[in-house]
Amino acid sequence: MNTVNEILGKIERNQFIVGIVGLGYVGLPLAVSFAGKKVKTIGFEKSATKASHVNNKINYIGDVTDAELKEVVEANFLEATTDFTRMKECDAILICVPTPLDQFKKPNMDYIETSCREIGKYMKRNTFICLESTTYPTTTEDFMLPIIEKESGFKEGKDFWLAFSPERVDPGNKQFGTRNTPKVLGAMTEEGLEIGKAIYKYAIDTIYPVSSPKVAEMVKILENTYRLINISLINELALLCGKMDIDIWEVIEAAKTKPYGFQAFYPGPGIGGHCIPLDPFYLEHIAKKFNFDLTMIHTAGHIDMMMPHRMTLKIASALNRQQKSINGSQVLFLGIAYKPNIDDERESPALRIMDEVSKKGAKVIYHDPFISSTRVGSSTYQSVDLTKQLLNDSDCVVITTNHQVFDSDFIVKESKLVVDLRNAIKKSSDKVYKL
Amino acid sequence: MNTVNEILGKIERNQFIVGIVGLGYVGLPLAVSFAGKKVKTIGFEKSATKASHVNNKINYIGDVTDAELKEVVEANFLEATTDFTRMKECDAILICVPTPLDQFKKPNMDYIETSCREIGKYMKRNTFICLESTTYPTTTEDFMLPIIEKESGFKEGKDFWLAFSPERVDPGNKQFGTRNTPKVLGAMTEEGLEIGKAIYKYAIDTIYPVSSPKVAEMVKILENTYRLINISLINELALLCGKMDIDIWEVIEAAKTKPYGFQAFYPGPGIGGHCIPLDPFYLEHIAKKFNFDLTMIHTAGHIDMMMPHRMTLKIASALNRQQKSINGSQVLFLGIAYKPNIDDERESPALRIMDEVSKKGAKVIYHDPFISSTRVGSSTYQSVDLTKQLLNDSDCVVITTNHQVFDSDFIVKESKLVVDLRNAIKKSSDKVYKL
Repeated sequence: MNTVNEILGKIERNQFIVGIVGLGYVGLPLAVSFAGKKVKTIGFEKSATKASHVNNKINYIGDVTDAELKEVVEANFLEATTDFTRMKECDAILICVPTPLDQFKKPNMDYIETSCREIGKYMKRNTFICLESTTYPTTTEDFMLPIIEKESGFKEGKDFWLAFSPERVDPGNKQFGTRNTPKVLGAMTEEGLEIGKAIYKYAIDTIYPVSSPKVAEMVKILENTYRLINISLINELALLCGKMDIDIWEVIEAAKTKPYGFQAFYPGPGIGGHCIPLDPFYLEHIAKKFNFDLTMIHTAGHIDMMMPHRMTLKIASALNRQQKSINGSQVLFLGIAYKPNIDDERESPALRIMDEVSKKGAKVIYHDPFISSTRVGSSTYQSVDLTKQLLNDSDCVVITTNHQVFDSDFIVKESKLVVDLRNAIKKSSDKVYKL
Repeated sequence: MNTVNEILGKIERNQFIVGIVGLGYVGLPLAVSFAGKKVKTIGFEKSATKASHVNNKINYIGDVTDAELKEVVEANFLEATTDFTRMKECDAILICVPTPLDQFKKPNMDYIETSCREIGKYMKRNTFICLESTTYPTTTEDFMLPIIEKESGFKEGKDFWLAFSPERVDPGNKQFGTRNTPKVLGAMTEEGLEIGKAIYKYAIDTIYPVSSPKVAEMVKILENTYRLINISLINELALLCGKMDIDIWEVIEAAKTKPYGFQAFYPGPGIGGHCIPLDPFYLEHIAKKFNFDLTMIHTAGHIDMMMPHRMTLKIASALNRQQKSINGSQVLFLGIAYKPNIDDERESPALRIMDEVSKKGAKVIYHDPFISSTRVGSSTYQSVDLTKQLLNDSDCVVITTNHQVFDSDFIVKESKLVVDLRNAIKKSSDKVYKL
């Protein structure tokens, strides 16, 4: 009890060091948020390039401003290191590592496991440890705890505290960032919860405590599963509406006039990014252990898996009306990021469509003002300049991501054929085929 | 063109009569809304009892106040009749009849068909006809139009106008009723749309026009399909959380702290009412014609169909902990309406659970302050008084609908065992089993 009060006192007086494992789109904004409140922050990063970028004030994350990063590094509140032994300096270690799926859509827990081993090896007594990465419920207590206790020889609730607090980063969201998005926190013990709240208070305005790590784990999965199934529903309805000659975009705008009980989702070529295509399948994975089949997630996954193929058929069908085949056509993709106005193409459906269209014999090119090159299958593509000539020369222009900078009038005017998968083009034209 | 202007002028000057077919939970509030603005309104109703109730100012719909009904009937703005030949008096006929599913979950279009035949037989030239009943897209143009044109010998767009405008009634909603809920309207012609807007303006504050009846038809289906799939998702997750010993209600409250991109739905014993369990299956029906399988709706339907059985297992499992079987136990159901504080048990999941528990040999009784008797299968049940003795004597009390009047402290205190399917009981107790 004395120890806990001492720890809380040190936190209160800002006499503590926070370590953040992983300086990606979650970890770096969080580190900058702590350091911005004059908390001594150490970023642990496997990539020497990223670590040196941070130390040299070279910003690589859209949700962080160059000025913020410069300020906190110059003031010595933030430094990055590849030396994980320095975890022994930290009073809190917050883990922001990736939790990808492997190619069979099974969770890849390697990053969490490695982090836990290193923490177990190097941490000092009385450290608060919190995972932020999205993962299946029970991860903190059933997967992390045994590794950390074994490596350290310490006991949770006595020698250290373990918690889970899901990141809710929405890249590119100008209204809600790390600081002003409420943060759910579930710890294994009451003391852990109190320590966690005291620490996070420096970086986050509102902490919402829950009764256990597994509740916090489920919260994040629920949020993103909600999005997965609603996007999948609207994608499926968009395909039906295409067959029934109903404009799904008009339907959604009209449904939005219902003043209660409706939230609009929009169709598109498929689900992208590092959350929605992944998180629900973490839950599907653990559900099997409980002999439980998550049919809604399974069905949504099924819809998403077929979307790139359905979009390829849309392109084929548009070309067919001009008596052309995919094979031999030049197909220009506009926007390959997984959502507008960001530079991230992870899990982007555009890549999967490019791959399929290319395999069917098209000459595939793309333009994205935010992404200068990308790999699709075994090929590397470079973004080409968006010129009048390029549009004139392409047999089909496919709008896969509706970046704000795109000039839809120009695109329609100069193209022979446009397949608009994002409702980017508002004026009707017989050159344009909408999803 | 002249005719249309003449018609619009007559509407403008309130020199028109509106006929409303079906005086149920949609038609009667709509009729009262028109009549309240001094529009001469005739309600057409097959049930002589309902018609005479209206004419005798006996209110039978919760969303209408007794005073409103009295006022408009006494002022002669509203009358009801069973004489459908009087449709010839009407300038507008708005159809608010039921569109149920049959026992194989196929659309029953009989009410719409009959209405169209009667309209076709009796209407005068220049009538505006609008369907409000939820149905599959294409109903207005492909199903109604041929019947009306054949029966009347009239031509749409010349002799009459046909439109679709979905009702959005949410029974018991105190904030949004007929007048202040925006209304989507899609007509077959521009003129029809203008006439429809002019007419509905008397009863509804905001009209949102769309390009066709089938868009308007799809809007309503989208709204309720959204609800169906989200309720089904949360029901499925609730069952998993039960197995994982995670409190789904706590998870939902925490997820609600996300300030964007999330809308909370709550689990329960299944889907009820006359919209959500029906409307999406109208779309599934028509999709088959387009060779299209709506997998999300299908999966949601599957989850809903198994819910009463899963709830029966919950009851069995709760009784089992007290070494009792369903067979021979007295099981008291509290609340059988499909949602709180209303008197409507249509499609209520409570009835399906009562049926299954009864077939397994329980003595089933129920209490609902709003519903004095109900039929379940071939049996009729009467609501019993909720007394201390009743709770003491029941082996299991199941909260199927959380009416506000229920006193949860009293229920927990006096019961041997409570299965709470609605998160009605906030205090934890080892007598209480939550969904």
